[in-house]
This record gives sequence, C-alpha cells and structure tokens, in this order.
Amino acid sequence: MLNTPVEVNKRGYCVPSSPKVVICYDGMDPSYLADAAIRGISPRLSAMAAHGLYASAHSAMPSFTNPNNVSIVCGAPPSVHGVSGNYWYDRATGLEVMMTDAGPLRAPTILASLAQIGVKVAAVTAKDKLRKALAVGLAGEGRQGIAFSAEKAASCTVAEHGISGEEAQAGQPVPDQYSPELSLFVLDAGLRLLQSGRAQVLYLSLSDFVQHAHAPGAPESDAFIRAVDARVGAFLDAGATVGIVADHGMTDLSLADGSPNILYLGDCLDARYGVGATRVICPITDPFVRHHGALGGFVRVHILGDQDHDEVRGFLGRLPGVQLALLREEMCRRFDQPIEREGDVAIIASKGVALGTHDGAHALGELAGTRLRSHGSLAERDVPFLVSHPLNTAYRRKAATQQLHNYDIFDFVLNGACREEV
Amino acid sequence: MLNTPVEVNKRGYCVPSSPKVVICYDGMDPSYLADAAIRGISPRLSAMAAHGLYASAHSAMPSFTNPNNVSIVCGAPPSVHGVSGNYWYDRATGLEVMMTDAGPLRAPTILASLAQIGVKVAAVTAKDKLRKALAVGLAGEGRQGIAFSAEKAASCTVAEHGISGEEAQAGQPVPDQYSPELSLFVLDAGLRLLQSGRAQVLYLSLSDFVQHAHAPGAPESDAFIRAVDARVGAFLDAGATVGIVADHGMTDLSLADGSPNILYLGDCLDARYGVGATRVICPITDPFVRHHGALGGFVRVHILGDQDHDEVRGFLGRLPGVQLALLREEMCRRFDQPIEREGDVAIIASKGVALGTHDGAHALGELAGTRLRSHGSLAERDVPFLVSHPLNTAYRRKAATQQLHNYDIFDFVLNGACREEV
Repeated sequence: MLNTPVEVNKRGYCVPSSPKVVICYDGMDPSYLADAAIRGISPRLSAMAAHGLYASAHSAMPSFTNPNNVSIVCGAPPSVHGVSGNYWYDRATGLEVMMTDAGPLRAPTILASLAQIGVKVAAVTAKDKLRKALAVGLAGEGRQGIAFSAEKAASCTVAEHGISGEEAQAGQPVPDQYSPELSLFVLDAGLRLLQSGRAQVLYLSLSDFVQHAHAPGAPESDAFIRAVDARVGAFLDAGATVGIVADHGMTDLSLADGSPNILYLGDCLDARYGVGATRVICPITDPFVRHHGALGGFVRVHILGDQDHDEVRGFLGRLPGVQLALLREEMCRRFDQPIEREGDVAIIASKGVALGTHDGAHALGELAGTRLRSHGSLAERDVPFLVSHPLNTAYRRKAATQQLHNYDIFDFVLNGACREEV
Repeated sequence: MLNTPVEVNKRGYCVPSSPKVVICYDGMDPSYLADAAIRGISPRLSAMAAHGLYASAHSAMPSFTNPNNVSIVCGAPPSVHGVSGNYWYDRATGLEVMMTDAGPLRAPTILASLAQIGVKVAAVTAKDKLRKALAVGLAGEGRQGIAFSAEKAASCTVAEHGISGEEAQAGQPVPDQYSPELSLFVLDAGLRLLQSGRAQVLYLSLSDFVQHAHAPGAPESDAFIRAVDARVGAFLDAGATVGIVADHGMTDLSLADGSPNILYLGDCLDARYGVGATRVICPITDPFVRHHGALGGFVRVHILGDQDHDEVRGFLGRLPGVQLALLREEMCRRFDQPIEREGDVAIIASKGVALGTHDGAHALGELAGTRLRSHGSLAERDVPFLVSHPLNTAYRRKAATQQLHNYDIFDFVLNGACREEV
C-alpha cells in the first residue's frame, strides 16, 4: 500500500493506518444537536465536540440528499461531479431523470480511489438509489470494495455489492424504508464490517425520516439521537476516528394551523405565461416522497417558449416567498453548480416556505397530519461538522478561519485528525 | 428648498416633491409575507411586490431592532453609526447601557438631514426608547421635524417632539405596549401627519409583538397583516411612495414540547473558566422583555480575566448550538460592527437556538405558555424589501445584481422609484 497521499479531485488524502468512519447524518439540523447536547442525551457526540471539533459547515446547494452525499464522497462541490439534485430535467428528451441514474459520476470518489490502492473501503447507505451512485469504482465487477444499502441488504451479491446478502443482513430484519431503524441498520452494519476487519474506511449514510417527521425534543427525535449516539460510541470504542456531517438541515415549513406554507410556482408561471410555456422541476423529488411530498426550498424553472429569461427571473424574484431567483450562469457561479443540468432560472425559497409545482400535484395526503418539515434552501445550508479527535495545527487553523463545507469531512478525518501523525 | 441631492453618510438623497413613507415592519419574517401573499390576505402589499419591487434584503447584524432602525435612518451599517445592539457593556464603568442612551449617534440621519433643508419630516415609533435615538437632529430645540412614539404619544410637547400630545394622540386611546394596536397607532398617526400636510417624508417603525407571539397563519398574525395592509393602502391612495423593510426576521426557537431551545453560555463559561472570569451580554435586552425574555440568537462575551481570547473563542465555537464564534476584529470586519462596542468574542447562534446567560436569569415565565420566537442570528437576517412604484433603470439593475440591505430603503424610495423622474 502506498504511503504517499492519494489525489482525488485535486486534494490529497492520506492513506489511513487506523479505522476511519464518516457518517452522513441525513437531515441533522444544528438545532437537534444543540438541544441534545444541552439536555445531555448525546454524550458521545458531545464528547466529540469537546475533544475534537464541532463547527458549522455549509452543505452544497441545493441542500438536498443526493448532491450532498456525492459531494462528500468526492470531496468537491456539484460543479465538479455533476449531481446537483435528486431529479433532473433532460431537455433533449423531455424526461425527468434521477440524476444518479443519468450515467456515471463525472468525478472519481475518495472511496473508489482508496479502494483502488488496496484500502478496505465500504459504503453503506439507507436507500439503494444512493448506493448505486456511491458504488461506482468501489464495488462490483473487478472491484474490491463493499457498497450496499439497508433497503436492499437481503439481496446483496458478492459480484455487485462485494458482500453476500447473508453477511450484509447478518440475521437482522431489513427495516421498513420509512423507519428510524433503517438508519440504525446502516450503522450496525458498518460496525460489523469494522469489527470483522472487512473495512477500514467506512462511509455510512443515514435517512432523514425522523427529522422530516419530528422537531427537536420530540420523543422520536430524542430516541433516534440516543440510538445514533450509542452507535457512534461503539465506533469510537472500536478505535475508529469518526467524522460526522449532515447533508442538509431541516426547517418547519408549516403555518400555525399545521398546513404547509407552499408557493406553487407552476401555477404562478402558468397564470402569467400560459400553460406549457415553462416547466418547474422539484429536484428534491425522490422515490421516498412520503418524507416531504416532493416539497422543498429549491426548484429549477425551464423556459420552453420564447419568453425572455431575465424577465421570467424578475417575475419570479418578486414573488413573496422567493429569496433568490437566479439565471443559470449566476446560479452556477454563486453556488458551484454544473451548468448543463441547471434550469434557465433557479429559485431558492425564503426560510419557512416550500416551493411546489401545481396545487394538487404534490402528495400532501402522505403527510398525514404531520407538519411539513423540509429543506433545499439557504435556511438548511448550515450543518454540523464533527471530528472525534483533536486536529493538527494546520487543520485547527483551517477550522478557525475558513468556511468549512460538509464535503471537507474526509479531508479532516484522513488528513487533519491527530491520531495519524506518527 | 435645494434641488441637488442631500449627502448623508456618503450617499446622495434626492429631495422629494411628493410624499415618501418608509415603514420598518418590525419582525416581518419573509415567511409571513409569503403566506399572506399566497392566501391573498394582503392585496396592497402584493400589489406593491407586483408593480414595484419585492426583494430579499439583509438586515444589519446582529438582527435586532435598534441597530437596524438606526441603520435604516442612517442608510448605513452599525460600523458607521455605532449602534450595534440594544444593550452594550461599558467595560470602563462595568455597566450595561442602553445603546441609544449612550450619547448621540455618531452619524447623521437621513431624516435630520432632510429636515435641515426644510423638508417636512416625521418619525413615529412604537417604543419611546427608539424614538429618542431617531429624533436626534430632527425634533426638539431649534428643530422643525416631528418625532414621537405611540407609547408616549399623550405626553408629547412641541418643544421636544415637534407636536403636541393632543395632536399626536388625536383622540385615539394610547394602546397597551404589548398589543398589535401599538403598531397600528403608529401607522394611523403617520397617515394623519401625511394627510394634514404636517409631513412629507415619514419613517414609521412598528413593534414585533405579534410576530414574537404568533406564527405565520395564526389568526392573530392574519389580523395584523390585514390591518397593516389596509393602512399601507391608505398611504398609497393618499399618493405616497411607500417602502417597507423589516429590521429582522423571526424564528421559532422552541422544542417539540413548546419549551425553548436555550444554550446558556454564561453557565458554560463559568463551568470552564470560573465565575466572574467572563461576562455574557445579551444585546437583545430591551425594556420590552416580555416579547422574548431577552433571549435571541446573538450575544457578546467579555473576558474579564487573563484567559486567551482565541482559546475562549475556540471553546465557544465548539458548543453545539453556536454557528459562529468570532474574535472582535473578525466580527467587525465580517459584519460591519463598531469595534469599540464589540465583545471580545461575538457569538451567533445556530438556526433554532436561543443564547442565554444563566439558567434562571431569563424571565421565561413571561413567555406564559407561548413558544419562544426570536431573532438575532443569521437565520433572521433575510427580510422583505418592498417598494410601491416601478424603479428606474439604474435601481432595477441594482436590485437584480446586488445584495440589498434594509438600510438601502431610503435610497430606493427617494432615488430609485420612478415617480420622481420628471
């Protein structure tokens, strides 16, 4: 195994000699962690903050799951790897495509690069769609790494996932996809891989089911944090250096009576420009819509007719509930987006506002009486950034003086945590 | 009267030939305006957004009332005028001082500068403390302008306020200081001044009582917005150009059970450095504590002992619930603060978290069963920015390409709204 750093997307990563675990704590808004720390219900997370690093990082925009998971494993923003939403509108075909199905990532991952030089690497995700993206170059034919999801653990094959279904499941029931247990399964599976020596570098990506459904301090939120905290403790006790970030925060987007505060941009556009002149894409859409009814704080507008793009931008930007309406180039410049997948106009919602397409087009019934809590805007960009061990001088300085991004976490865990300085 | 622009704090302001009204809609988080626009309960505000300008502006940090009101009337950030909080810790005396009592502003106001060249100017505030600051150079001995508060309308004198108590009150009952009517009194008084020809340029500053107490969509929130909307309509019908901004947004800082999510920094500091080594100042403190129990998203820490300031900053920055912990110089550089009133370490809370001094030191009983809704952090920095009339080309471009601040509103109303282009 090499001792020189491996370069991935213009950053060098030290080859580790002890276990390293990065957890993407999906939807972990800083307000949950603050409450848990204050009430003392997350002792191992608090100890990480006290002895290692706690900082506030930016997630990649839009503050959605897929762009951020991919950014974290690439150590780079969406402009580098091309995944800037869950869903994407392909103008050539007129189809909406899951971005992680749209072909391979256009950047290598840290996971694959380490695996290629012989490091034992595993990625475990809650959802299988995300697993497919993260597995590129890591698991499957000719690869040595492991990549599987809790959702499909039972049907793993060594050929595709680097692990059998029997070993992946390890006798545990595969949890319901809408349950806190789906995330805990991910952590438990990761711990088994670590303890059995099957993996030395782990990326464990949870689900935000609990945070979509429950505010900080709710019994369900507390129970979930306690359960995650105990598992983080188990990784630390097993000798791992642990880094934790979130892919995005979470904000209550409801009115006083519990109904959601939704601005239907498709309806506004149709009323002004006519039906069919524009198309609104909600890139939060994913196969797990029950979390949020495909309602979040960011949408892309495609202009199909001959409307002047800047006029449409001006119209949208003047709607109360819109924080920023940006033309494609400006969105890409300010928020590091890949230009070929950007809308003609990108819309970021004001804090507390959900953006939708058309009244009636979103599965609000699925919310079933719970308040809409979601993400996508700048109000959910700030996320916790935790490292379990003290940092070396250079990384202490970096943390104190620079705006960290969640996709700096592998850099901090592999290069900045002092345990490796021998 | 001069026809050349009046220069105030390095910006020129055109002398108006028609009535101009700037409203500081205290605590008007963008989520309220979005909801009101979507449900059609604020037709005049929506018409302003559609025909004039609606944009998302930054308020001055910290996102509190006094710094922002003063910034708006100065057209400049706190580094220029010196008011960077409601309360300030004077290290020389060891006293906490209301900043607006700490001597005259160190910058002139747009209001006073216009009044000095003969423009009829009036400022009406909800609270009297704020009125005192805004009255400097405007009303009182040797001044021609009017400045009074709803709170103390009955006791106005021509000598001090430029208007008698009888005229200021106009037969209306003076509302309770904890009521929506206090703000409506301000607007009604302003309308009388406009209609009677007593004032041509008005600054009307409301109270955030309703927003502290009620979420968007609550019956109380709806009723207040409807009442403000009707009065805005009356100003428009009277021929005024109207600009509306907020001094700060508003965020629910409560847990699922309704209790507040408070991080007591004084307790954390005492536990680590000993009692008396540091002092935490909550600059949201004001004489109207029932709104928020002096709990907000920003505090200043003064280090009284010989602790290394950067070590204290590092400790505070690692507490979950803290978004940014900045040394004095860095806080001033990044957020345009006056250095002589900054703490040794400035603390900005994470979204959804309130910062306090000591458990038991805040009047939580005053919240009386309502959820804590407050402000001060970056989560309440974004505020609506509305202008009633179309903008000229230069200001349209400015609005489309620059990050506006709420303290740009007089510039837009006096220089940018097209009505004056004759």
